[in-house]
Amino acid sequence: MPEYRFTFGLWTVGNPGRDPFGAPTREPVDPVDSVNKLAELGAWGISLHDEDLVPWGSSAAERDRIVARFKAALESTGLGVGMATTNLFGHPAFKDGAFTSNDRRVRRAAIGKAMRSIDLGAELGASLYVFWGGREGTEAGIAKDPRDALERYREAIDVLGDYVADQGYDMRFAIEPKPNEPRGDIFLPTVGHALHFISTLQRPDMVGVNPEVAHETMAGLSFQHGVGQALWAGKLFHIDLNGQRIGRYDQDFRFGAEDLKEAFLLVRLLERAGYEGPLHFDAHAYRNENADGVWDFAVGCMNTYRALAEKAAYFDSLPAVQEALAAASTNELAMSSVDGDSPETLKAESEALDELAARGYFNEALDQILVEVLLGVR
Amino acid sequence: MPEYRFTFGLWTVGNPGRDPFGAPTREPVDPVDSVNKLAELGAWGISLHDEDLVPWGSSAAERDRIVARFKAALESTGLGVGMATTNLFGHPAFKDGAFTSNDRRVRRAAIGKAMRSIDLGAELGASLYVFWGGREGTEAGIAKDPRDALERYREAIDVLGDYVADQGYDMRFAIEPKPNEPRGDIFLPTVGHALHFISTLQRPDMVGVNPEVAHETMAGLSFQHGVGQALWAGKLFHIDLNGQRIGRYDQDFRFGAEDLKEAFLLVRLLERAGYEGPLHFDAHAYRNENADGVWDFAVGCMNTYRALAEKAAYFDSLPAVQEALAAASTNELAMSSVDGDSPETLKAESEALDELAARGYFNEALDQILVEVLLGVR
Amino acid sequence: MPEYRFTFGLWTVGNPGRDPFGAPTREPVDPVDSVNKLAELGAWGISLHDEDLVPWGSSAAERDRIVARFKAALESTGLGVGMATTNLFGHPAFKDGAFTSNDRRVRRAAIGKAMRSIDLGAELGASLYVFWGGREGTEAGIAKDPRDALERYREAIDVLGDYVADQGYDMRFAIEPKPNEPRGDIFLPTVGHALHFISTLQRPDMVGVNPEVAHETMAGLSFQHGVGQALWAGKLFHIDLNGQRIGRYDQDFRFGAEDLKEAFLLVRLLERAGYEGPLHFDAHAYRNENADGVWDFAVGCMNTYRALAEKAAYFDSLPAVQEALAAASTNELAMSSVDGDSPETLKAESEALDELAARGYFNEALDQILVEVLLGVR
Amino acid sequence: MPEYRFTFGLWTVGNPGRDPFGAPTREPVDPVDSVNKLAELGAWGISLHDEDLVPWGSSAAERDRIVARFKAALESTGLGVGMATTNLFGHPAFKDGAFTSNDRRVRRAAIGKAMRSIDLGAELGASLYVFWGGREGTEAGIAKDPRDALERYREAIDVLGDYVADQGYDMRFAIEPKPNEPRGDIFLPTVGHALHFISTLQRPDMVGVNPEVAHETMAGLSFQHGVGQALWAGKLFHIDLNGQRIGRYDQDFRFGAEDLKEAFLLVRLLERAGYEGPLHFDAHAYRNENADGVWDFAVGCMNTYRALAEKAAYFDSLPAVQEALAAASTNELAMSSVDGDSPETLKAESEALDELAARGYFNEALDQILVEVLLGVR
Repeated sequence: MPEYRFTFGLWTVGNPGRDPFGAPTREPVDPVDSVNKLAELGAWGISLHDEDLVPWGSSAAERDRIVARFKAALESTGLGVGMATTNLFGHPAFKDGAFTSNDRRVRRAAIGKAMRSIDLGAELGASLYVFWGGREGTEAGIAKDPRDALERYREAIDVLGDYVADQGYDMRFAIEPKPNEPRGDIFLPTVGHALHFISTLQRPDMVGVNPEVAHETMAGLSFQHGVGQALWAGKLFHIDLNGQRIGRYDQDFRFGAEDLKEAFLLVRLLERAGYEGPLHFDAHAYRNENADGVWDFAVGCMNTYRALAEKAAYFDSLPAVQEALAAASTNELAMSSVDGDSPETLKAESEALDELAARGYFNEALDQILVEVLLGVR
Repeated sequence: MPEYRFTFGLWTVGNPGRDPFGAPTREPVDPVDSVNKLAELGAWGISLHDEDLVPWGSSAAERDRIVARFKAALESTGLGVGMATTNLFGHPAFKDGAFTSNDRRVRRAAIGKAMRSIDLGAELGASLYVFWGGREGTEAGIAKDPRDALERYREAIDVLGDYVADQGYDMRFAIEPKPNEPRGDIFLPTVGHALHFISTLQRPDMVGVNPEVAHETMAGLSFQHGVGQALWAGKLFHIDLNGQRIGRYDQDFRFGAEDLKEAFLLVRLLERAGYEGPLHFDAHAYRNENADGVWDFAVGCMNTYRALAEKAAYFDSLPAVQEALAAASTNELAMSSVDGDSPETLKAESEALDELAARGYFNEALDQILVEVLLGVR
Repeated sequence: MPEYRFTFGLWTVGNPGRDPFGAPTREPVDPVDSVNKLAELGAWGISLHDEDLVPWGSSAAERDRIVARFKAALESTGLGVGMATTNLFGHPAFKDGAFTSNDRRVRRAAIGKAMRSIDLGAELGASLYVFWGGREGTEAGIAKDPRDALERYREAIDVLGDYVADQGYDMRFAIEPKPNEPRGDIFLPTVGHALHFISTLQRPDMVGVNPEVAHETMAGLSFQHGVGQALWAGKLFHIDLNGQRIGRYDQDFRFGAEDLKEAFLLVRLLERAGYEGPLHFDAHAYRNENADGVWDFAVGCMNTYRALAEKAAYFDSLPAVQEALAAASTNELAMSSVDGDSPETLKAESEALDELAARGYFNEALDQILVEVLLGVR
Repeated sequence: MPEYRFTFGLWTVGNPGRDPFGAPTREPVDPVDSVNKLAELGAWGISLHDEDLVPWGSSAAERDRIVARFKAALESTGLGVGMATTNLFGHPAFKDGAFTSNDRRVRRAAIGKAMRSIDLGAELGASLYVFWGGREGTEAGIAKDPRDALERYREAIDVLGDYVADQGYDMRFAIEPKPNEPRGDIFLPTVGHALHFISTLQRPDMVGVNPEVAHETMAGLSFQHGVGQALWAGKLFHIDLNGQRIGRYDQDFRFGAEDLKEAFLLVRLLERAGYEGPLHFDAHAYRNENADGVWDFAVGCMNTYRALAEKAAYFDSLPAVQEALAAASTNELAMSSVDGDSPETLKAESEALDELAARGYFNEALDQILVEVLLGVR
């Protein structure tokens, strides 16, 4: 049993290296081969869209044959299914959205496709089902009233929540936000928007979020803070790990390939919070790699996570760190500010601002220790 | 009585033109002069931080004298107070945060200062109180556990909500999100994060959001979509209008000075939604202006809003627009997707994807009509 | 003869609507059909990559047949060829770069392919040949020394310049910069980098730039300023017009669909500078359009350019504008600052700073007039 | 004699912690104290603006006294002057620009102030003079024709180049680009634009660039690539080291505080290129620090540079790295692509694309080794 619940999407190690400007650079991969290789490399499990396993348009018999063969591979390797999800973005019918397409027939087809895919996820033992609404958005903002779109989005998740309950599936949902690409602007663009949306659902308790490093980072938001808000709300059901530079196309680089300090802060937060869900690498090898490079990529993701987790534990074990955190009053932030004090007391204390301004917060020293631990020179 | 509830912050028309690299270019403005001039130009009201009116360190007698003189100006001009707020960012004591400073004494002082400022707001007749947590964040992410910070933020808002209730003030709160600047990363970075945060408060009904064009735009998010989510949730209590380019320092340009199409979509959404709160220009004149340019700036903000509101009405009156919206199925998005249908029905309808892919959504034509209406050539 | 030299790439009106997350939404278009339709809509010409016309792997006979048929269509419609270029990004062999691939054989193949494509361009009468080095870059910065990459880039352009000269083609080159996508970072990321690179070539006079709205805007740079620097240097040989939001994937929206004020400033600059090259719409219809929407898109691009050009002329004809420009001292910037003055004179004049600080620059009023002209309300 | 030529600006360790939203958090520092402390910490030198040392408005006698005292401190500590520069951004007279102000009198005063400041630099022994044109730009693009602005910019640098030559100073110039802030858009926004601009000067040989991590990074450009282009052109005369996140206000964080991989690539490039100019930390302590934190900051900058330089040497010493670079064909990029081959040869080789597409470039493995070396786990 692996120490960490590392998972990879079938579409990640199977990514063929096609991009908007170029043809594929790698051959398609048999999902069973992916399962075998990932097991060999020490992953805990896989995740999948319906179409990653069962090509669109397969007959029922084909579908069953494919699923049986795949289940056999999972069983023989012991790999788990970290999550399942629906491809509601690839087919041209979803070009204006799936749950929020302006065409009601498309919305209904999308819900129907999700139900079928949920059945597949349940059959494969997935206890978590992810919704990434990549097509739920606009390029021409005039074409959709955002209030209508959110209402339809809510309706779809509520209908599917009922479906799961009616079927008796042991399954929770996680919503994956993204600000843009492939749409000009996507609804539920950040962890915050998704968390709020969940609070409006009929079954808020069964729904959490699936934040992705790349998606929050595209908008330049702190991933540590976004994940922190999700943890604070008890809503971190799943997480997508990868690498991304701010303000760019969706890069999905190897975990740790960009912004090592933020990656460290993330891993430290997850480990301290006792997060026990899958650590899902939703990323892919650089396009200039051939098949061999894919596995270099996969190993790299896992190695970097392990290295950062070890560093996080080491960091917190250092007396100099504990002293620096104390000098920064970091732990004092966990103490309540007010303890039944009267307004008069608090108003009077506001007189002390000039005096309170004198101290420093030791952030330079603390952050430099972090950098030196990260570099392994301390 | 002005047709629109346009308001300006005392700090906006009074902005002296100082920036990180340069000294002020304009003289301080007497708040009473601002009131008189804004009334003359047709504004509905003003807004203020405590220190915009009463300098920090004023004696009680000075404070009362200043407030009385200011109230007299409001009364003589008929101007209202759109909102009041606390300056919890200017004093060096807040350098590590106010409600989320690591120093508990600072947090208490911040709450006390906010109470005093709420008293001032109530005295001036403000029915809305804004919280912009500009210092609530980090440059060194290691220095604060984001879960602790959010807990302290919640505590502060809850304490202040109790205070307002205990005092019997007729006052609601609005939280103003911002992703960064002056901190490296600010907590509650977007409308979405703030909406979720509000759902965790003890008095969620009394708290809404105050989205700002510049703040969401800095992160490259669609302002129309963010405001749409706030309206959808019944939480648009106030709005800050200005201009900003994506991915830059906080510019606070004249409303409409940047991204006219998004400004049009915003105004159309506000007007269609029947938003009745203040239309607050939280912006300032370019630094290369002297005092005269400040009033050019203020007039420009109001003129552009009016022009866009007229254009929005005109746009929706055009038969070609109604046809284009119909061809885009825009109104169909307001219809529920599912109406008691069985899962089997919906699953079966998912077979129709290939057929559903054929149609187009007329977004090019629709958006081009919008551009031409915006340009006044149609 | 059209008033404006509007051109469209075969790949733009022929764009099938595929993106990184979804299958094509439109059928391939016969280039001859594009020629006929564009002529009908009033375009001046087309542009093309080698493979837009002649599929990779075509026999010599097929190639000649295709080219002859295409030339016939150009002749019958009177359409010109605004520019030709090489597809050095689609084939998987270019996954690590073309002129800067680490593999020397790929670099040689790329130069050979470009020579063949230049022959095609010459045969079709193109007097301008564009180089967009979309694959010339890295995701892993360690893999290429940027100095080596630039040296190879320079070598390739020099070799191809010699080739054109040796063949006696009447052809100039234009380099098209882009900051990223499809590579993590692309060499020659901006107009500035390309202009400098040109100054290092063996034949600097035959090489200019082809700035693209989307590419400079992705990096948040002012397109007006970038084009201005190219014009100032006499190097604006071609221009790519489209729409883009800052900090996003390459959107290639309809010209004018984003940032109308910057589009206005661009058109005004081009018209005032007497730019006579092609006005090339390197853009495509939104993916949720079918074939009809493509032509809505094409008409929209041209209509918006025309409308902005008319507005630019009207703007400059207004007495209020001339007064505002005078109040802003805009024309004074065209006067030399120093006229043989001694250092002592200039040093002495620096004493006057305090006095010089008093004036304002009337930028708010001037910019607001621009907004109102743009909105057609003035 | 320090191993590295580390320098700090007087304004960096003397930064008082004021920002657009808050008052200073630290006291002013006596420049002589900065000199003494930096010498103690192991810096090689300092850099300065005229006004960092001599307050604007000082009498000639005061100026001479201040300069003499400062020179004495430099001599007693042995610290050098890495560069000198003019403050052409702080005084309100420069609100519309200095060399490109629309007001000719301001332009002349700016040139005069620069001459005086050049005299000061020469007196202090600075052999490099930096021009950062922070105010040379616009918020309202309509207010300046960019061609006029560049012409005035060129005139100013040419006049000042003449002045230096006439005075017989042994001094070179370096231009420091920045995309925006404090202006909406700044002329010469990137290293590329500045390199091109230099090629248009009357004395191009005496002028190079001073790239800054934060400035290129604000626009999301690769700093390694920008510095690489400057080195390739022989124009890296000076460099500003700090930390910055993409798409944000100018942060000027401690070197290495953000994006350690890019920092490593930069240091490796500088060391391999044999760059011998100053390593200038143009950064400042976080605002929540008091005076003590300033020196933590300064030490951190130097320690991180040293650690990265050691890592770069170690990285290149590893056999696994040499193998990975070979597998990536990295060194092959230094070989010329063409060696007198005929066009026919090259055209024929382009037939081999399909075959050339098979190989991978080993970038995942190579980059992962880099990450592991950076983390100190390899």
